[in-house]
Amino acid sequence: MIHPKYDELKIKQKDLLNRKNEVDLRFYNGIYDRYLYPVITRHHVPIEWRFDLNQSKNPYFMERLMVNATFNSGAIYHEGKHYLVVRLEGADRKSIFALASSRTGVDGFEFERLIHWDDFDKQETNRYDMRLVKHEDGYIYGTYCAEKKDLLHNDTSSAVADVGIVRTKDLMTWEKLPNLLTKASQQRNVVLHPEFVSGKYAFYTRPQDGFIDVGDGGGIYFGCADNIEKAEIHEEKIIAGKKYHTIYEYKNGQGPAPIKTSKGWIHLAHGVRQTAAGLRYVLYMFATDLTHLTQVIAKPSGYFIAPFDDERIGDVSNVVFSNGWTEKNNQVFIYYASSDTRIHVATTTIDKLIDYVFNTPQEVYRSNDSTVQRQQLIDNNKKIKEKTHG
Amino acid sequence: MIHPKYDELKIKQKDLLNRKNEVDLRFYNGIYDRYLYPVITRHHVPIEWRFDLNQSKNPYFMERLMVNATFNSGAIYHEGKHYLVVRLEGADRKSIFALASSRTGVDGFEFERLIHWDDFDKQETNRYDMRLVKHEDGYIYGTYCAEKKDLLHNDTSSAVADVGIVRTKDLMTWEKLPNLLTKASQQRNVVLHPEFVSGKYAFYTRPQDGFIDVGDGGGIYFGCADNIEKAEIHEEKIIAGKKYHTIYEYKNGQGPAPIKTSKGWIHLAHGVRQTAAGLRYVLYMFATDLTHLTQVIAKPSGYFIAPFDDERIGDVSNVVFSNGWTEKNNQVFIYYASSDTRIHVATTTIDKLIDYVFNTPQEVYRSNDSTVQRQQLIDNNKKIKEKTHG
Repeated sequence: MIHPKYDELKIKQKDLLNRKNEVDLRFYNGIYDRYLYPVITRHHVPIEWRFDLNQSKNPYFMERLMVNATFNSGAIYHEGKHYLVVRLEGADRKSIFALASSRTGVDGFEFERLIHWDDFDKQETNRYDMRLVKHEDGYIYGTYCAEKKDLLHNDTSSAVADVGIVRTKDLMTWEKLPNLLTKASQQRNVVLHPEFVSGKYAFYTRPQDGFIDVGDGGGIYFGCADNIEKAEIHEEKIIAGKKYHTIYEYKNGQGPAPIKTSKGWIHLAHGVRQTAAGLRYVLYMFATDLTHLTQVIAKPSGYFIAPFDDERIGDVSNVVFSNGWTEKNNQVFIYYASSDTRIHVATTTIDKLIDYVFNTPQEVYRSNDSTVQRQQLIDNNKKIKEKTHG
Repeated sequence: MIHPKYDELKIKQKDLLNRKNEVDLRFYNGIYDRYLYPVITRHHVPIEWRFDLNQSKNPYFMERLMVNATFNSGAIYHEGKHYLVVRLEGADRKSIFALASSRTGVDGFEFERLIHWDDFDKQETNRYDMRLVKHEDGYIYGTYCAEKKDLLHNDTSSAVADVGIVRTKDLMTWEKLPNLLTKASQQRNVVLHPEFVSGKYAFYTRPQDGFIDVGDGGGIYFGCADNIEKAEIHEEKIIAGKKYHTIYEYKNGQGPAPIKTSKGWIHLAHGVRQTAAGLRYVLYMFATDLTHLTQVIAKPSGYFIAPFDDERIGDVSNVVFSNGWTEKNNQVFIYYASSDTRIHVATTTIDKLIDYVFNTPQEVYRSNDSTVQRQQLIDNNKKIKEKTHG
């Protein structure tokens, strides 16, 4: 027999799943729209994934496997739907991957299934932050952070981050390939480039010395592997490094795979700085050349998205992070998580992103020069107003 | 003359003290109920404990001794009332102990008195986090953290944590005993077991190397002392250690004294992990054998209580902590503080706690295995639904 509480929770959840999302009119910057509600929270996870429905085995209708958070999701537009591979974290702190989809991309997201594959990497303790890429070889690839215990350090917190690679054609059956090999002791935020580069598989990487601390290294790099079934990168070239007193001073990393536009590859990345209350994660953008893939050709000043309002608070506060966006008829849906807790969407268009990336003033790196930069804007606007009203 | 502002504040506070508490219907997990309002906040502290009422001496009716926060409280059900020994922190950062009580346990808490004893430990700078235990020797004991300056380190932040022991029979008159002696350089979260063990006083301990950092040590230990008037533990045996990539990866510690049930001693503990935004404290449970007190016989996967909604924010954000619960006719009242700022209650029953601790799936420690564990729940539920609707 099914516990009667089940129907009650089902009805309550249906309201949440059917809730229409709306543009948040409190926010305007002309670059993208924010939305009133997150697109996925832990409350979206099916009741059947958390409660044992069997009344005799679960007389109090307890949540036998809690869900702590749903965040950092890979994203892909596939056969008429926006798909997210969600990082679903249980009360046990373990992240697992779950597929959710929506036709609108801004609401109506429902979980479809957990994602499994052949578990041959037995050292892998935690897996998370998948980037999804439709590659020109015909597969959809997922690269994710495969974390294992650091056996060199005799404590219970040290971890080593590797790059897991999986692939699928239908988002249902997944094949696990060997982890990516590079010269760095650790790698996170590794993303496959969607096109072959001189017949090779190209990756955006983030070599690092330590697990949280990127050490002397850090920055977004680029490297190629001869094949994907046993991918190995022998040489990584830096694209975008860390820099003193910027929003990416302490760490940075590639978000999802870049979007190809007429003007260049447009990238979304995260930048991290230290504060008295811990690290602050924001998102920023840049463009690379269509031919010379390691050459940054535009980089608007400062951040693109920072934590806003309720987004500021969560399991790891003061964080926005994105590892997935989708594109559909010039529309762009940016899926970003706030404070390691829930997933939001911001919408814009390819045209707007091009304008933002190429026509926003570039970074000037000094308070004095930022003063001059803003004064120029003020002075120009004053002239325009005088001309218009004069 | 009493300042006229006094009556105005009194009336306002009366509304707060008389406010009925209700189960928070936004939250359901079948294991315990949360409540809409905290049970004690700094606004519950009597006006007379903060303001000098004398109008001539205090013409502006200033708060002469502010209260910063009311949190981590020991708890005991005694002579028809739920008593809390509250950690009351002034604006001076010093914690003092204050007794509050309620007949319902979920609302109507009022402060009764401050708690004093003979001050013979002159090195003790700060005292906090008392655990209250009705021992079978007839006394009610309080064990608390007695903190003093670390004279070995030449800075103004380093402290040493000792274990203070006090006892009472009526919660009014308290007798201070010498601090507990153990082999560890520091101890926190030390709790007296309510029963004699082979005629000895038994303690749950948490030996540690440093004040905040538990170092190589850490974990919940168990040890016995021949007597309580000069308590000394010669040997501590580990019960529950830290473990890589869990919610208790970085630190853990015993909450209140365990509750004896037909199936075993049920424990509430805190687990701590590191995040990019500081430490995150959650509560978890386990059970030990009725005879073999150091043997863990059940441990549900993951956390039991994590910070929820407004609980996330406070003086030390992202923290839930409990050092007190009460039991009355199978009802259990769990007093937990959020973010070192205010005290909440969660209610459940002994029967539910037994079901939770013994029938929740155990921890599997890997993302892959957590995926399989959740998939099994999903598959079983699918069968139940097919059977029911088939």
